Amino acid sequence: MERRKFLTGAALAGAGVAAAPFAAPAIAQERREMTVVSTWPRDFPGLGISAQRLCARITEVSEGRITVNYFAAGERVGAFDSFDEVASGNAQAYIGADYYWKGKHPGFAYFTSVPLGMTTVEWNAWIKFKGGQDLWDEMSGEFGLKALPCGATGTQMGGWFNKEVNSAEDFKGLKFRMPGLGGDVIAKLGASVVSLPGGQIYENLVSGAIDATEWVGPYNDYFLKFYEAAKYYYYPGMHEPGGGLAFGMNKSWWESLTKWEQALITTCCMEEHAAQYEEAQALNGQYLQKMITENGVVLKEFNDDVYDAFAEAALAVFEETRAHSALAAKIDESFQANLREIGGYQKIAEVAFSNQRNRVLGI
Amino acid sequence: MERRKFLTGAALAGAGVAAAPFAAPAIAQERREMTVVSTWPRDFPGLGISAQRLCARITEVSEGRITVNYFAAGERVGAFDSFDEVASGNAQAYIGADYYWKGKHPGFAYFTSVPLGMTTVEWNAWIKFKGGQDLWDEMSGEFGLKALPCGATGTQMGGWFNKEVNSAEDFKGLKFRMPGLGGDVIAKLGASVVSLPGGQIYENLVSGAIDATEWVGPYNDYFLKFYEAAKYYYYPGMHEPGGGLAFGMNKSWWESLTKWEQALITTCCMEEHAAQYEEAQALNGQYLQKMITENGVVLKEFNDDVYDAFAEAALAVFEETRAHSALAAKIDESFQANLREIGGYQKIAEVAFSNQRNRVLGI
Repeated sequence: MERRKFLTGAALAGAGVAAAPFAAPAIAQERREMTVVSTWPRDFPGLGISAQRLCARITEVSEGRITVNYFAAGERVGAFDSFDEVASGNAQAYIGADYYWKGKHPGFAYFTSVPLGMTTVEWNAWIKFKGGQDLWDEMSGEFGLKALPCGATGTQMGGWFNKEVNSAEDFKGLKFRMPGLGGDVIAKLGASVVSLPGGQIYENLVSGAIDATEWVGPYNDYFLKFYEAAKYYYYPGMHEPGGGLAFGMNKSWWESLTKWEQALITTCCMEEHAAQYEEAQALNGQYLQKMITENGVVLKEFNDDVYDAFAEAALAVFEETRAHSALAAKIDESFQANLREIGGYQKIAEVAFSNQRNRVLGI
Repeated sequence: MERRKFLTGAALAGAGVAAAPFAAPAIAQERREMTVVSTWPRDFPGLGISAQRLCARITEVSEGRITVNYFAAGERVGAFDSFDEVASGNAQAYIGADYYWKGKHPGFAYFTSVPLGMTTVEWNAWIKFKGGQDLWDEMSGEFGLKALPCGATGTQMGGWFNKEVNSAEDFKGLKFRMPGLGGDVIAKLGASVVSLPGGQIYENLVSGAIDATEWVGPYNDYFLKFYEAAKYYYYPGMHEPGGGLAFGMNKSWWESLTKWEQALITTCCMEEHAAQYEEAQALNGQYLQKMITENGVVLKEFNDDVYDAFAEAALAVFEETRAHSALAAKIDESFQANLREIGGYQKIAEVAFSNQRNRVLGI
């Protein structure tokens, strides 16, 4: 109380706060420029707009003391070059999905989403309150990065197909765009897996270079017009049930920030991490209906046989991931244990309630 | 850019920013005291700790330019006097559950949680992206308040009972602590409904003044030791499936803030709104197991017949609520329509996925 009063008095008297030896960190007025590169195209509905909103928010809430200069995919570097741009220190942060970097280390996949893994709520609980962030820091730290969650899509749709999927056999030979460990799962079912950034999927689907693709969910997918090339839209997706996107910062830069700057960036990331997820949930229902009624999309559900095959393949993928390295094993073990504990509780809470509510209200 | 540079120069020169006519809002260094009263006891695990964390965060991220003085329940006013303390302008904000004020207007219930209503994720989507906040503003505005979400519990447990609940008949004559519209639902089943703040439930349950109570979920409930007086712990709760808590500010005070101060408070509220929910989900599973193994708690599930009775009573309660006033009707209509649209999508996303995942992994 006394210190605060004194500072107020000093400010009123016009004394230079920065020059006062006892007042150092409280209202330091240093201004920083922050270059952020992104894996999403400019103004991309959903993911791109969310990334732009976050960067504007950091500038706003810091009153410009951290001024963010945002570059969408291709404006400064290509989507998949974001990692190196930040690790090298050329930019201060990227916004993207960390599973894009699973070629560098499979542990990165767990900090986006893994097949048959946690929903967004479960993953948030793990990251923030059950040690997930520490593991993410250890993983990113090996590459000179420090990441925070900054967006989430929720449980994704299973993908766009131009033929029905009635058994695991139907994945054989399918050229499927699917990043992350989900791609490894369908590869075990015989699919030919392709990884492409969002901005390049449509042209490949239309040309027939790929047969099927997943992206996010109705709100995000609508604007990419996948329905022009594939009519069957499957649910529920096993490959990305939830998790988050990364605000991946250069670690040395992050460590050079003041505690206040770190707190401010963290607060803004957490606000947007929630908002992006909730915006998609607010809009998915209406965009799904729109595509069904206006674009002839056919909504289909994966059957139990297909899910049984997904599970068998996913368990094999996790075993391979654990074998990669001690760190990969540690991440997988923490993830799987928390999935069962947190997901086991969600089963009797949100999930049991939703099942009963939907039954009695006819939803 | 130029303007920011100029301000930096002015600050270095020691010019009084507040006195410069052209520099008004950007780095105004006015400091505000903010008194926040709460409906939770000091250091209450879950809800109380979350409220304290939020108040500390506003002070931290604003570097003390908004310094929050937090008073737990009873430290300045009693829990249920928080509303009047803020509406009158004696304090700047309360932290609590807006359904405590449903006696003033039943519309308030929708801004905490309503029976058979939205889960937390669905409610967040409605509040932030489908017009819910506008309705909340209209509702609160009638009482001189402006509220933001600042915490959430997730789908609550159905409550603590000292006898089994096998049909709706078992609610007849039961003295049950349950606030909000959920209380109105069980009143229709013949229960005698009591509203008590959290800090007074235990003594009433032990003394037999009440037969049953709901509170939140395993993590929050564990510390209140309800298991000493009631062994049966039912799920899933129909009465508070999700929603949020309120950071209820004096409206005139809120409108006197700068855009920056409003943005800063909003960002911190959104961060904590997510964190409180996720902390509970991170810890509910382990506290439930602890109570089962160490305290002899018996976990039970409400059957379909009980849920059918809940639904019939809930639909009657909503009808009465709509009849209260044009505003109550408008809120209920928006809520019910969005529940069906957003919840209808969640049914094929998070819910369908969780059911399949839990089946194939044996969760």
